[in-house]
Amino acid sequence: MYTLYYGTIVHTPTISSIEININTLVGVNSNGTIDFIHKNLSKDVNPIKFFFNNHSPSDPIKEFKFNDNSQNPLQFFCPGFIDTHIHASQYPNLGIGIGVPLLDWLKQYTFPMEESFKKENLLMAEDVYNKVISRTLSCGTTCASYFTTIDYDTTTLFTDLLLKHGQRGFVGKVCMDHNEPYPQYSESFEQSIESQQKILNYIESKNSKINARYSEKKGTLSTCNHDHSRLVTPIITPRFAPVCSDPLLQTLGAISLANSLPIQTHIAENLKEVALMKELFPQFENYASVYDHYQLLTNRTILAHAVHLDDDECKIISERGCTISHCPTSNSFLSSGEAPIKKYLKHNINIALGTDLSGGFDSSILGIMKHSILVSHHLAMPEEIDDSNKLSIKEVMYMATQGGAKAVGLGDTIGTFHVGKQWDAQLIDLASSNSYLDVFEWQVPDTKGDPTKAVEKINELLGRWIFNGDDRNCMKVWVNGNLVVDKEDTSDGWVIV
Amino acid sequence: MYTLYYGTIVHTPTISSIEININTLVGVNSNGTIDFIHKNLSKDVNPIKFFFNNHSPSDPIKEFKFNDNSQNPLQFFCPGFIDTHIHASQYPNLGIGIGVPLLDWLKQYTFPMEESFKKENLLMAEDVYNKVISRTLSCGTTCASYFTTIDYDTTTLFTDLLLKHGQRGFVGKVCMDHNEPYPQYSESFEQSIESQQKILNYIESKNSKINARYSEKKGTLSTCNHDHSRLVTPIITPRFAPVCSDPLLQTLGAISLANSLPIQTHIAENLKEVALMKELFPQFENYASVYDHYQLLTNRTILAHAVHLDDDECKIISERGCTISHCPTSNSFLSSGEAPIKKYLKHNINIALGTDLSGGFDSSILGIMKHSILVSHHLAMPEEIDDSNKLSIKEVMYMATQGGAKAVGLGDTIGTFHVGKQWDAQLIDLASSNSYLDVFEWQVPDTKGDPTKAVEKINELLGRWIFNGDDRNCMKVWVNGNLVVDKEDTSDGWVIV
Repeated sequence: MYTLYYGTIVHTPTISSIEININTLVGVNSNGTIDFIHKNLSKDVNPIKFFFNNHSPSDPIKEFKFNDNSQNPLQFFCPGFIDTHIHASQYPNLGIGIGVPLLDWLKQYTFPMEESFKKENLLMAEDVYNKVISRTLSCGTTCASYFTTIDYDTTTLFTDLLLKHGQRGFVGKVCMDHNEPYPQYSESFEQSIESQQKILNYIESKNSKINARYSEKKGTLSTCNHDHSRLVTPIITPRFAPVCSDPLLQTLGAISLANSLPIQTHIAENLKEVALMKELFPQFENYASVYDHYQLLTNRTILAHAVHLDDDECKIISERGCTISHCPTSNSFLSSGEAPIKKYLKHNINIALGTDLSGGFDSSILGIMKHSILVSHHLAMPEEIDDSNKLSIKEVMYMATQGGAKAVGLGDTIGTFHVGKQWDAQLIDLASSNSYLDVFEWQVPDTKGDPTKAVEKINELLGRWIFNGDDRNCMKVWVNGNLVVDKEDTSDGWVIV
Repeated sequence: MYTLYYGTIVHTPTISSIEININTLVGVNSNGTIDFIHKNLSKDVNPIKFFFNNHSPSDPIKEFKFNDNSQNPLQFFCPGFIDTHIHASQYPNLGIGIGVPLLDWLKQYTFPMEESFKKENLLMAEDVYNKVISRTLSCGTTCASYFTTIDYDTTTLFTDLLLKHGQRGFVGKVCMDHNEPYPQYSESFEQSIESQQKILNYIESKNSKINARYSEKKGTLSTCNHDHSRLVTPIITPRFAPVCSDPLLQTLGAISLANSLPIQTHIAENLKEVALMKELFPQFENYASVYDHYQLLTNRTILAHAVHLDDDECKIISERGCTISHCPTSNSFLSSGEAPIKKYLKHNINIALGTDLSGGFDSSILGIMKHSILVSHHLAMPEEIDDSNKLSIKEVMYMATQGGAKAVGLGDTIGTFHVGKQWDAQLIDLASSNSYLDVFEWQVPDTKGDPTKAVEKINELLGRWIFNGDDRNCMKVWVNGNLVVDKEDTSDGWVIV
């Protein structure tokens, strides 16, 4: 099946540019790869005829779908969101424990919740994991880098559920063997490594089977880059340095290196944690150096939070090409601090966004974009307003998409609309039937009239979407070209030839 | 019609207390007044039998409705929200203009929008006003104190629409005759006062007609306090001191005094405005003293924003019994500052909440409760965490209900569930069919089991509601006992005898 998408597309090729193209025709082949993009077609052009006139006849197109969203000027396609920091097992705790200080909050809510994820509770785990995947997908999150728990059985179950729902996911079994603040929830070094290795094998075997099935079904796929279409990847996940022994940090660094695997962990989330690190690792100059020592800082490392980093740390992180996962909602909820993102950008560090469920309470990356801007205003405000601290709409949209793609090592695969990338996308409708935002007649762009004016209006509507919209405006979601969420009642938009 | 409500009720009688009562029976008479409240009935008691056994037979009950929500332990009744600062005419601009500095923002978006509200544009005004009233009602806002514009015709239209939708509302025609930053949108002193007087007459005449109709229809109503059941009240609204001439401020103070009318205005929203005030009113010690001089600080005055007040101002405001309408969402969006609400509470100032559409982007007071807590964390965070700045769930819930009721002079009429107050209420369902928040089986309170445990669980769920819930959890809304919003498909919950 070859699919044509026609309408407005919005994406951020760089952190300082947003591109809005109306009447744009995108072709996606049967591998889910973007085959061509024809921007800003004249209103007189029939897109289907245009396609057949311009598309190379050698392509093996047997049937195609035409998804025409150009008739609704309040709809646009944008890249799927990428959530680079989310604790799947903590999903039931969203919004709980606001008055409780961090350490008590962890002991009272987080660790008991994580501890309950085990073989004896598979049904409970399945319920939670199904719901968190469905919820984030329905918010437009096409890819997420998850922490599960220390447990093997429920982590493999989670892998299966990602595949079932069709969300692109990075599965991080939590590793922690030291200084456990909640003794009931712990593992030894040996247990941690054994369990990690079994999970790597499990996911590898799943992927091999899927690839074999694909190759069997469609000859064409054997020539495509399997890394592009693979949905689930393991990610090495030392919880954070204070709860990992020396050997564990060392071994995890080595496993990542040997298997070319991405890494995720926490860094400098709050001041007490930074002080604790100084106490636990007195021989190191700073927090980042600890991870660096154990080869845990790579160009596929996600460092979550990073609220309190000094300039030396920024330099190391920048040199190693790591990504900072900015989690403003969580940082405000838990009073962790205000991460100086503009400072990190000046250090040329890649920034992505994370919901950090359940330190954060909002499952939607659209919500995190909003919070990122608001928190940057708080950084700007204490005395005189310092505009240099403020994040813009295009910056947070980049972080939510291409910044996230780079974070997980898929910068060439997803995150923007470019030929050769996978169609991981969402269809936004600002006038969806149950929309929380009301758009007025005079605010509707005329996408069949003056293109400059139409683009200006769409640009203004992006503010309305980010600040006043929510998951109700996300109508369809595709991963690898497959439709995985469809909230529309009718199939009017679809013509199958 | 006499109505019985049965289920869980949640309210905040004081700023430091939250009351959760399960299996509670509330009787509301045909005036919409709460007649009795029987809390925590034993599960063996049949509430209807209990009602007939305990209710005085002399009451003229001919028919009654029984609204039983005790079967769904994730539903509860809570007082309707009160939005004490909202610009109705700015509704189309929500979320627009994030990168633009305040003064440009006003010139580019706010004033042109307000200016368009005039006789020639009645249809447009009707569309906007219908939508803002419907939207806030569907978020559980049973009462709001609105700014309209300087215009007479569309302000009276707005009054009619409040009555049509059944929302309790305070209608503030904007008064501004001086230093207009956008000359196309201005009025002279004489025009302002004439227009204000005509609006007072219009609303007075509307209310007289309604009261006459009521008295005609139902004999009982002639004995009830009409002030309780009246829906629409004018509120004197000098936009803010910098755009009002001396005579205008003086006359508005006098009109309020002569007619016992409430007052609303802005104060100390941002630092540039405070500096401007010093320049414009050099003879006064501070911003608050200006309003005080013109008799504009009363116990029915709402001062919106109040981000930058000194201690002297706090003392005056406290002594006069004014309310501060806290608008955290707007203050963050426009980088106005972080209002030190805990400091104001120490000064014994009443605090209420405002959406401040469209400086604020969120139409829901539930959202403003969430932002109030988050912004208080930002105040607490810069260096070491200062917990004394943090607002709690009960504090923001009080501000959203009883604090708002006191703000508009209806502290004895609405805001909590007490005998003699009006039934301005909402039914929250944390498991509504389209809820954004997922509640898990083990989080559901057993309201037919141990009451202490059930109340504990409900208390925890309030955090989930405020941080993870939204308008989709607000299922029904009543004003003066009348059902004005009903999102339930079926009428299963209702038994009509």
